[in-house]
Amino acid sequence: MLDKLHEACGVFGIYAPDEDVARLTYFGLYALQHRGQESAGIAVSAGGDISCYTDMGLVTRAFTEKILSMMKGDAAIGHVRYSTTGSSVQANAQPIIAEGKRTVALGHNGNLVNVFRFRDELERDGVVLKSTTDSEIMAQMIARDEAETTEDAIINVASKVRGAFSVAMLCDGKVYGFRDPFGIRPLSIGRLNNSGWVIASESCAFRVIGAEFVRDAEPGEIIMLDGDGYHSVHQMESPRCATCVFEFIYFARPDSYILDQLLYQCRKRMGETLAQESPVDADVVISVPDSGTPAAIGFARASRIPYEEGFIKNRYVARTFIQPDEHIRSLGIKIKLNPIMETIEGKRVVLVDDSIVRGTTSSQIVRILYEQGAKEVHIRVSSPPVKHPCFYGIDTAEREELLASSRNVEKIRNFLQADSVAYLSIEGMIRATCVDRDKFCLACFNGDYPIAIPQQLHLTKLTFEDPKARQRDDVFARIIKR
Amino acid sequence: MLDKLHEACGVFGIYAPDEDVARLTYFGLYALQHRGQESAGIAVSAGGDISCYTDMGLVTRAFTEKILSMMKGDAAIGHVRYSTTGSSVQANAQPIIAEGKRTVALGHNGNLVNVFRFRDELERDGVVLKSTTDSEIMAQMIARDEAETTEDAIINVASKVRGAFSVAMLCDGKVYGFRDPFGIRPLSIGRLNNSGWVIASESCAFRVIGAEFVRDAEPGEIIMLDGDGYHSVHQMESPRCATCVFEFIYFARPDSYILDQLLYQCRKRMGETLAQESPVDADVVISVPDSGTPAAIGFARASRIPYEEGFIKNRYVARTFIQPDEHIRSLGIKIKLNPIMETIEGKRVVLVDDSIVRGTTSSQIVRILYEQGAKEVHIRVSSPPVKHPCFYGIDTAEREELLASSRNVEKIRNFLQADSVAYLSIEGMIRATCVDRDKFCLACFNGDYPIAIPQQLHLTKLTFEDPKARQRDDVFARIIKR
Amino acid sequence: MLDKLHEACGVFGIYAPDEDVARLTYFGLYALQHRGQESAGIAVSAGGDISCYTDMGLVTRAFTEKILSMMKGDAAIGHVRYSTTGSSVQANAQPIIAEGKRTVALGHNGNLVNVFRFRDELERDGVVLKSTTDSEIMAQMIARDEAETTEDAIINVASKVRGAFSVAMLCDGKVYGFRDPFGIRPLSIGRLNNSGWVIASESCAFRVIGAEFVRDAEPGEIIMLDGDGYHSVHQMESPRCATCVFEFIYFARPDSYILDQLLYQCRKRMGETLAQESPVDADVVISVPDSGTPAAIGFARASRIPYEEGFIKNRYVARTFIQPDEHIRSLGIKIKLNPIMETIEGKRVVLVDDSIVRGTTSSQIVRILYEQGAKEVHIRVSSPPVKHPCFYGIDTAEREELLASSRNVEKIRNFLQADSVAYLSIEGMIRATCVDRDKFCLACFNGDYPIAIPQQLHLTKLTFEDPKARQRDDVFARIIKR
Amino acid sequence: MLDKLHEACGVFGIYAPDEDVARLTYFGLYALQHRGQESAGIAVSAGGDISCYTDMGLVTRAFTEKILSMMKGDAAIGHVRYSTTGSSVQANAQPIIAEGKRTVALGHNGNLVNVFRFRDELERDGVVLKSTTDSEIMAQMIARDEAETTEDAIINVASKVRGAFSVAMLCDGKVYGFRDPFGIRPLSIGRLNNSGWVIASESCAFRVIGAEFVRDAEPGEIIMLDGDGYHSVHQMESPRCATCVFEFIYFARPDSYILDQLLYQCRKRMGETLAQESPVDADVVISVPDSGTPAAIGFARASRIPYEEGFIKNRYVARTFIQPDEHIRSLGIKIKLNPIMETIEGKRVVLVDDSIVRGTTSSQIVRILYEQGAKEVHIRVSSPPVKHPCFYGIDTAEREELLASSRNVEKIRNFLQADSVAYLSIEGMIRATCVDRDKFCLACFNGDYPIAIPQQLHLTKLTFEDPKARQRDDVFARIIKR
Repeated sequence: MLDKLHEACGVFGIYAPDEDVARLTYFGLYALQHRGQESAGIAVSAGGDISCYTDMGLVTRAFTEKILSMMKGDAAIGHVRYSTTGSSVQANAQPIIAEGKRTVALGHNGNLVNVFRFRDELERDGVVLKSTTDSEIMAQMIARDEAETTEDAIINVASKVRGAFSVAMLCDGKVYGFRDPFGIRPLSIGRLNNSGWVIASESCAFRVIGAEFVRDAEPGEIIMLDGDGYHSVHQMESPRCATCVFEFIYFARPDSYILDQLLYQCRKRMGETLAQESPVDADVVISVPDSGTPAAIGFARASRIPYEEGFIKNRYVARTFIQPDEHIRSLGIKIKLNPIMETIEGKRVVLVDDSIVRGTTSSQIVRILYEQGAKEVHIRVSSPPVKHPCFYGIDTAEREELLASSRNVEKIRNFLQADSVAYLSIEGMIRATCVDRDKFCLACFNGDYPIAIPQQLHLTKLTFEDPKARQRDDVFARIIKR
Repeated sequence: MLDKLHEACGVFGIYAPDEDVARLTYFGLYALQHRGQESAGIAVSAGGDISCYTDMGLVTRAFTEKILSMMKGDAAIGHVRYSTTGSSVQANAQPIIAEGKRTVALGHNGNLVNVFRFRDELERDGVVLKSTTDSEIMAQMIARDEAETTEDAIINVASKVRGAFSVAMLCDGKVYGFRDPFGIRPLSIGRLNNSGWVIASESCAFRVIGAEFVRDAEPGEIIMLDGDGYHSVHQMESPRCATCVFEFIYFARPDSYILDQLLYQCRKRMGETLAQESPVDADVVISVPDSGTPAAIGFARASRIPYEEGFIKNRYVARTFIQPDEHIRSLGIKIKLNPIMETIEGKRVVLVDDSIVRGTTSSQIVRILYEQGAKEVHIRVSSPPVKHPCFYGIDTAEREELLASSRNVEKIRNFLQADSVAYLSIEGMIRATCVDRDKFCLACFNGDYPIAIPQQLHLTKLTFEDPKARQRDDVFARIIKR
Repeated sequence: MLDKLHEACGVFGIYAPDEDVARLTYFGLYALQHRGQESAGIAVSAGGDISCYTDMGLVTRAFTEKILSMMKGDAAIGHVRYSTTGSSVQANAQPIIAEGKRTVALGHNGNLVNVFRFRDELERDGVVLKSTTDSEIMAQMIARDEAETTEDAIINVASKVRGAFSVAMLCDGKVYGFRDPFGIRPLSIGRLNNSGWVIASESCAFRVIGAEFVRDAEPGEIIMLDGDGYHSVHQMESPRCATCVFEFIYFARPDSYILDQLLYQCRKRMGETLAQESPVDADVVISVPDSGTPAAIGFARASRIPYEEGFIKNRYVARTFIQPDEHIRSLGIKIKLNPIMETIEGKRVVLVDDSIVRGTTSSQIVRILYEQGAKEVHIRVSSPPVKHPCFYGIDTAEREELLASSRNVEKIRNFLQADSVAYLSIEGMIRATCVDRDKFCLACFNGDYPIAIPQQLHLTKLTFEDPKARQRDDVFARIIKR
Repeated sequence: MLDKLHEACGVFGIYAPDEDVARLTYFGLYALQHRGQESAGIAVSAGGDISCYTDMGLVTRAFTEKILSMMKGDAAIGHVRYSTTGSSVQANAQPIIAEGKRTVALGHNGNLVNVFRFRDELERDGVVLKSTTDSEIMAQMIARDEAETTEDAIINVASKVRGAFSVAMLCDGKVYGFRDPFGIRPLSIGRLNNSGWVIASESCAFRVIGAEFVRDAEPGEIIMLDGDGYHSVHQMESPRCATCVFEFIYFARPDSYILDQLLYQCRKRMGETLAQESPVDADVVISVPDSGTPAAIGFARASRIPYEEGFIKNRYVARTFIQPDEHIRSLGIKIKLNPIMETIEGKRVVLVDDSIVRGTTSSQIVRILYEQGAKEVHIRVSSPPVKHPCFYGIDTAEREELLASSRNVEKIRNFLQADSVAYLSIEGMIRATCVDRDKFCLACFNGDYPIAIPQQLHLTKLTFEDPKARQRDDVFARIIKR
């Protein structure tokens, strides 16, 4: 409903024979819930046997005490899903179980871009796919790979598939974690007391279970957790680190660390930098809650304009499927955000948002601010203009829908009907992260895809279910660059 | 889980023949969800017939499109419940349907204190009560009252029962709203376009459906909504207005207006006043999110100490019934609140909270702040010490559990292990509300109950289910003051 | 699971302002449950408004007290569904609501054979179909028909569509019932006390609610129920009555009356006639329970061989979606039917079944009888060989799957490995019904379709979801005979 | 709804490392479903760990493929429950897990009569009981018994408790089965292929999974299943066999064997004996389906009066909680049983029922038969009059409610308004079973309780939840006879 990019998924894995691993996975997923609210699942390994349970909705809805108390074992993985590939149905929930030479349970964050050929191979081999996700392709390939060891199977498959993948996997009673060679999606390693080890999409999942952050997994690294600790069992060739910079801007929780940076601080510095780059004479700084708040606080600090709460957000996540009638539809964003008139009335307002994608809600918010009596509305976006779609696991709009894809800032200002609009520069953003520029994928801002994408290609969310998509893959495959 | 007082309920009513009243009630309840998450219900009147549906959990869980689309009519009421009287079971969900001389659907926010005698009378008359709530007693009494008109029946019953009640009621195709003579719980009137009228516990429910706030219902006022507009059909004798001041401190949403004040501003001024009353030399002001944030911003403003986010709160409401194992239990508040170390480390921290009840989570939070490297921790509470239990619809602890009931501030500081602790004074609080002191019930702070309560009385949540409670009612009834 | 033809649906309608019509519909559907267990639904009319609720599964699962008590009104219709057209999903449940010039709720038993053109017309008119059923096409056509009166709209649509339809419909607070001109599926009229009127697929639904059977609706008749009683508002031209004879053999409950015959008696006479046509020297007559039992009793009576129970059937209807493992799959029919060895051992057994479709379970049953020590097994089928598929609402196999489509009786005997096999003759069957031969559709036995079907046509269950099916409809349309 | 005694439960256990034991337990419980429809549960042992899942309702409702596929292991037990002790809530579902010196999962069929003292002991030891069932007491006692081996723990506990118990238990990866010293409830042993072993309340659960009946467990015998086969690990002292004769009359499925007799044959012989003892001149024999049918067939055979189906029974088990309105309530038994008028009209009818408890439905049935035109109605009951309540796990009425407790046959005839009434004699019944009289408990017929019961004792279903029941236990304990 809010005008944001949407992340694909969160993954979690734990090896801790002395603990109730399913329960810890449940709480870990609860901390990662912001990465996906469509489905949740947990797989547990007891001896060699794997049990798996998935359901639609939030992890607190999908799991009950009765279910959790059945899930016993030494190791577990978990997954929360926001669908980027494959439609929103139970069969697409993860972890996925695949059986072949070995049995694996696999949870995947990311998006693969060259899987049609592998799907065809699997189908020729008589594999009946249960889902329409790229993740199942990868799981089946690993399960059926001829290599002797699981490590070798992972290496074989991870070298063949292209795209973004941060994976938690269960096999033979061990937990594996691995990232694609560009490290597009995050993956961290944590330690639980003396004997347990954890991996998770974000470090915020560690504290909730009392674990300590150890380090990020490296791009192309394969991690294995077992009774002896955590092992870096292989390092695939990695052209460079190209971590998605949107994890720093919006996706990851502000209390997570990625590339050794606390995201809350990065976001606050983005606001400070933005205030320096695009200052404005105003009475109050407000944010679009909650994600814009750290940058708004930073902006207020640097500009010495007071920060205030301009909107109250309904705290009850409504994944409602209730149809709004005409009346409700016309209210739009008001159902989620209620303005505080006293903060706004008669004021020159700086509205800080972390990002603008289509601009649909921003224009509604500007209108509300004027209705509440704002004298001026200055939009400050603490990230650069989003001009290019993402192909690595994020639910961006089609290129034409992106507000900034064909508009300069003045046209955007006009579209949003604000008094001024300014975005953070790419350089400013990078500086605020305190990370080297060449560690990031900046494709959505500058079109420089670490894995090149043809301009005319528009992969839709449901490519697997679309017979024409297969053809695209062939085109796609030809032009991929190493 | 958080150490807060808990509100009883939220009510909503709408008369709007041209609209989908059930759907608007759904969205109205969604805005009032913070007042109760245990059960939700909607009753609709079509012609004279009333249909009612209730279920456990959040309104977004209780209602589906299938259910809502069956609910057609001209008028509707809704209710969200947090149980103060009666246990947490389906039968106690509201609205309650009662049939007698007339059929009513009734949703109640508040708590009645003299209903045992009426229950006995009803049972003598052969009424089989379906729930264990005081609200059903009132509904049955109104349904069976011998008066000719519904208005007279309400007047008769409202004069007999003692305690707090803000009620939305459906009868004969009309919506009624009425408040007890002290106006303990809030109730507001709104207008929807030209032809529709709305009542709600809080005005925040109006904007979400595109309605405009008109005014508060008066203490003791009986409102009726029908095709001709809203009518103030009766004004019961009202000794004085004694609205619960905790609505200003914590219960109501900050974007609601009560007694003509925007609560967000009141809370910010409470923080400012607190900074003046109990200044402290420090590096950073943080809040216990989300309810402490307006006061923290006010404190920061007045003290010129920068405001920062010190904790990230998990946004996914987990009414989880998952049992924490030992491991998880030891983590306590960390499951909900994750500290931002960079905000805290090496700093002298002012922690602003809106209220402290038992002190259980505050002491955990202080410990976490020290673990994160805080040099000093100064607790500033933007309300006075809670020393007395509430009997009008709020789930307070037993008196002995209240942190401040038997401890002075120094003892509290010692209990919480903070460097300093200060509360807002009653006078400062009143000044910050911009409302006359004698419009409030301040009983939980100063023990001055508008409806006197014997010191030795401890009404438990489940009094109705407790055979000994009947006796208490008799005692209680004798000493009630008019 | 059992080797039977499957009926499409059951319909029910009631006009009874003094009664709880939704509740009576619930019990009526409970009596019709054998006609469809996939989904159940009820629509109620209060004033002009229609409320509708449907869900998957048995009527006792789909409806709860909470739902039923919301459904108030003067008139109602209900539907139980076994899917013949359209897949098994919630959206295909009935009654279907369609809105246009009028709002109708419609439940349909039967199958239309020429609806693709109408679907295309509707889609050209911008109608978004919610289901993949032929029934929705009919509902939309009636709702949007330009005729002034509902009767005329029904007449217009019923004259355009071809196929089998017995329909219960709610419109403008009245209940309509109508049958296709051949009267392929049954529809009966009943009376409830003095003021209420009922229609139902079978008369067995009357007694369960205390109503009395009045008469069958005629082929091509349009019935309307309102406050003045039941009205035969129109009689469409009817070439002849061609009621499905399988209603007499298996579909309808034995305690229902169709064409003035009690089906239990017809089935018993079929067994008697079979004993006369194909006598056998044996020790015991057993049936395949429960449907074969009346004929078995008749066979025993006529042959003077004692009737015994040969199998115990599990009484708990398991619409289980539990996957049988290899072990269980190999057990097949044993999960439902357990043989009584003492009845069988050392005996020459006559096994009476009402019909054989594919022969899959019959061969298993023969094997079980020999395992239990039967000396001889003589199969007697109390209906003729099923040689042709049905196109009017019955889930027959493809022609090639029908055991008798390409096998004479000796080959069938060989396939089933029985000592002898005999079927009832068509003439014998007709005689046993006590109805004129030309009142029946006998197409599945003799290929004489009342509405001609091209030999090469194989309409599959999901034709609507199959793009190639549209083409078939064109072919089909050309050769249809009037 | 039908006027029957109600059995307590069914139990099942399997040791079969090569099979999917949870799935086989599921199908085994499906075959035992007639013994209890209130809740169902399965516990599986993998390694030493036990996972357990229970839910309300039929086994096909309680378990889904998702749940079953999580339950992996070498051994399993299952339980279906009809509540005799403890109310109908989730917490009372079985198997029960108890942890102490050992962890056990236990499913119990029967009723213990001296457990209050043990409950008090457990509570003194700090055990928090999760249910209100006698079964949990037994499970906790075994789990906490100080004996070294599980066998010894079972022996210790089984010697202390009095009453009826046939138990399936899982401990240390093995399956245990044991019966009380009187063998009141049945328990059989079966073999699955070469390597698997099974126990079940009735042998009908064996065939459904392809297992073969081996033998009954003996009264007081303790069986253990493991990798080496089945072992009779102990034989407790057994005063005599006193198997409940009602298993022969009604409870057990007719295709089960108990005490080496096939119950179908026993029931048919009861009908034959009844025809000899109490002949009648009549035109047709009908049964109250389904349980009366074998006896009716026997009666018809011996009397040479033709057997017919007089009623059609709705096959869809409606554990409906839908409230019948006045209309429906007045219909009573008609909702389940529909008469076949042609079988009855103008006939002298013999109505065979297997048993009459309160007589409530019998009188309705007689009335229906006369309404349908029966000339005479002769009731023949294929068991003796039920005069005494049961205390060993059967839901009998209070003594006063038993039709025959204070009425002779003529008074019963008058109550039922039939032309004649006759019961089978106790001697005739015994003869028909082909079992020695002293192997049976006949207490409900002759008041001769194998474990003496004081005349004034009325144990209610919910004794555990009733504070006064404790006292009774003391009285009870004093007079118990060995």
